[in-house]
Amino acid sequence: MLLYKQIAQTLQEKIYRGDFLSGEKLPSVREIGREHAVSLTTAQLAYRELEKMQLIYAVPKSGYFVIPNKNEALLPKAVNYIQKPVQIAQWNPTIDFLRVEERDNVTSLSCAVPNIESKTLEPLWQEINMISRRKNSLVLEYDCLQGLPALREQIHSISTHKPSFTPDDIVTTTSGHQSISLSIQACTQGNDVIAIESPAFPGLLQTLYGLGRKIIEIPTDPQTGIKLKRVQEAFHHWPVKAIVVTPTCNNPMGCSMPDTHKQQLLALANQYGVTIIENDVLAGLAYEYPRPATIQSFDSEGRVILCSSFSKTIAPGVRTGWVIPGKYKEKVMHLKYLSHCSGEIFMQQVVANFLREGHYFPHLRSMRQHYEALQSQYRELVESYFPPMTRISRPQGGFSLWIEHPPVDNRKLMDVLNRNKVIVLTGEHFSSAGCFTHHLRINYALPLIPRRRNGLKILGETLKLASL
Amino acid sequence: MLLYKQIAQTLQEKIYRGDFLSGEKLPSVREIGREHAVSLTTAQLAYRELEKMQLIYAVPKSGYFVIPNKNEALLPKAVNYIQKPVQIAQWNPTIDFLRVEERDNVTSLSCAVPNIESKTLEPLWQEINMISRRKNSLVLEYDCLQGLPALREQIHSISTHKPSFTPDDIVTTTSGHQSISLSIQACTQGNDVIAIESPAFPGLLQTLYGLGRKIIEIPTDPQTGIKLKRVQEAFHHWPVKAIVVTPTCNNPMGCSMPDTHKQQLLALANQYGVTIIENDVLAGLAYEYPRPATIQSFDSEGRVILCSSFSKTIAPGVRTGWVIPGKYKEKVMHLKYLSHCSGEIFMQQVVANFLREGHYFPHLRSMRQHYEALQSQYRELVESYFPPMTRISRPQGGFSLWIEHPPVDNRKLMDVLNRNKVIVLTGEHFSSAGCFTHHLRINYALPLIPRRRNGLKILGETLKLASL
Repeated sequence: MLLYKQIAQTLQEKIYRGDFLSGEKLPSVREIGREHAVSLTTAQLAYRELEKMQLIYAVPKSGYFVIPNKNEALLPKAVNYIQKPVQIAQWNPTIDFLRVEERDNVTSLSCAVPNIESKTLEPLWQEINMISRRKNSLVLEYDCLQGLPALREQIHSISTHKPSFTPDDIVTTTSGHQSISLSIQACTQGNDVIAIESPAFPGLLQTLYGLGRKIIEIPTDPQTGIKLKRVQEAFHHWPVKAIVVTPTCNNPMGCSMPDTHKQQLLALANQYGVTIIENDVLAGLAYEYPRPATIQSFDSEGRVILCSSFSKTIAPGVRTGWVIPGKYKEKVMHLKYLSHCSGEIFMQQVVANFLREGHYFPHLRSMRQHYEALQSQYRELVESYFPPMTRISRPQGGFSLWIEHPPVDNRKLMDVLNRNKVIVLTGEHFSSAGCFTHHLRINYALPLIPRRRNGLKILGETLKLASL
Repeated sequence: MLLYKQIAQTLQEKIYRGDFLSGEKLPSVREIGREHAVSLTTAQLAYRELEKMQLIYAVPKSGYFVIPNKNEALLPKAVNYIQKPVQIAQWNPTIDFLRVEERDNVTSLSCAVPNIESKTLEPLWQEINMISRRKNSLVLEYDCLQGLPALREQIHSISTHKPSFTPDDIVTTTSGHQSISLSIQACTQGNDVIAIESPAFPGLLQTLYGLGRKIIEIPTDPQTGIKLKRVQEAFHHWPVKAIVVTPTCNNPMGCSMPDTHKQQLLALANQYGVTIIENDVLAGLAYEYPRPATIQSFDSEGRVILCSSFSKTIAPGVRTGWVIPGKYKEKVMHLKYLSHCSGEIFMQQVVANFLREGHYFPHLRSMRQHYEALQSQYRELVESYFPPMTRISRPQGGFSLWIEHPPVDNRKLMDVLNRNKVIVLTGEHFSSAGCFTHHLRINYALPLIPRRRNGLKILGETLKLASL
């Protein structure tokens, strides 16, 4: 990246983070030049860049100012604690969310489900229909252990970042969840220490609890992802065996690590001999196009296990994911065997056909635009209903907002929500260390029908009332 | 069971086992009476029963004789060793069989796949088609963790033996394989000792290896199932935590335990505090109708975990199984979560509709008849192609023959089969103790097309040539 762009990015992050407030005067060009040890021209170019992004404006003879942003919410504060490895204490009630069959009178605001009503999924139904009419009984047979060859070829062909792997390096799974679970089991054992982002998505915490691993939570910036300095400290001080990261379209914060950070993380992993388990399930929904690179695409030492699925990009119900396990391939296959033997051919074939016929990328394009538009709508509602000083993440992809609200009495909050049949995932589910006591994840994939709008309103008003 | 029927059954087993040979004179009625401490009338009734079964004939003034059975093969010999618990040594190549995508020029004679070309499966395709036309996007959502309620209700309703469980006691899985794997993990840990039948199906051995459990193999009679005396010895001498049995339609031998044996096994398990994991996947294909009882139906103490699936009774590709875990329900749900989160709604709904519309029992009836007829055809070929003295199991259900052939040079056998692209599972895959060095499993579910007939011929001739 060009130098002036790097500086612009740094300044942009500071503005987002609230280091410079709306309307505030920015340092002079000279000061920027000095601070970053660059020429005045470079400093000037950085400011021009920020002007183009409509983040700042120039006042002749006076300097640069942050554009008043209609009181746009600030980013959630990045935590910066240092942790020790711990064993997660218990199954938390998160997995009960999976058991709720959403009834008409329950409004679930947090489940990480995509919108599956899009017209661009129409061809998927056609593929299902086509297979059902052909009655080719091969799709009712046992699949081979590694997964349907036709699907593995298609997965290979949609991998945009000059894949150094072949279809034979891919093992299909039922989900990203399974891919990650198998990967963790393949490269660690017993109560090995595994580093994770903080906040981490609940499914990961529960999986690590279930497997009995110790975890160390690494502070993660809501804009640039996991903090590399903290990663290094963790790798240095503790016998970390693996790190699970979602470098592109983080769940719950929606941020993506800059490429330079991805490369630095890889360098650290190489230096300390730590395996990176890269969760890539949401990356197809990055609003930036083409999608950001995987860490794996920079990897020449077989350090990275890539995990992905079509659960968020097509539909959870296709139950089709994959893992590129590198040197752990045999182990992952054995673990897949222990888990469920082989997968279902039918849906794998449906998805393979959907990809082969070129329906996937148009669908992704449509969903990206759809989610980006919905993000604005949801933000506006959160900003209008929630208490002042509520902070909101600025996702670069995916469909979840990470919200930090002023302290409330959480028990009171839950009582009111239960009474109103509004389900929301609070911050406690995203950390075993209790770091996120006043946080929520809101899913914005689903259209803002009155019921959902009302759910947000109830949530916002309850937060105001339960305020401490 | 009436006394004379019990005696008839004992004698029948002796005839099958070869204790009385074709044409041999049987003990007199008086001797039978004395031996079993019954009246002459009861002994007489027992012989009448065997006459009705066309196993023996009476010669006036001379006694009863075994009907010459056109040289029907004897049963494989029951082993009767005593074992110690052992750790299985390695992944054996069995699971590679799953990786073979059967090509036109490869003949696989052993894979445990059912026939899925039956006309009675036509309604399954119709259900798939119906769902695909309705485009109800609910089937593309996440399922709840316990499994689709509509399917659990149907599974409950097809359970013939006065089920003491409710749909809420059922957890759906992707397969019987997964049901068993989850059950083992739920009720045992680390290198706990688990008793299994010997021979055991390869998937079970591999699962136990993968989980690191110790196993103790219990001699199993090819006609009446696991030997209770040996079970008791094992329970008495070793810290056995669980026992995995297939009491109805054993794989590979096809035998079913008499109800009295099932009850005695349960009593032993209760006495020693051992959990029974009952594999019921083939029971719907018992040739006897109504199907034999499960051990679980006798269980009042929550001692039995029942595992089943539709892989053998409908099609492997529906990837739909279930487990009734009793007090281990929460644990099984957590383990299912670790394995793959939740299942696929689409196929669960298809199967639920297939059952609800009443297609399942007619399909089972048709398959039972089909397999029973095929069994005779396969037997005849084995008897004509294989070396003299080959022994063959007499399955009471399912679709596999367990064959004991005269000793051969196994390496030579494999060489010839490989050259001819014939794949067969030899006895070594059915025991970690090397008990079955001259054994094979043959699947008779698939029609005897020329390629398969030829495969059997090659196998038989190779066995003759490789004979030691």
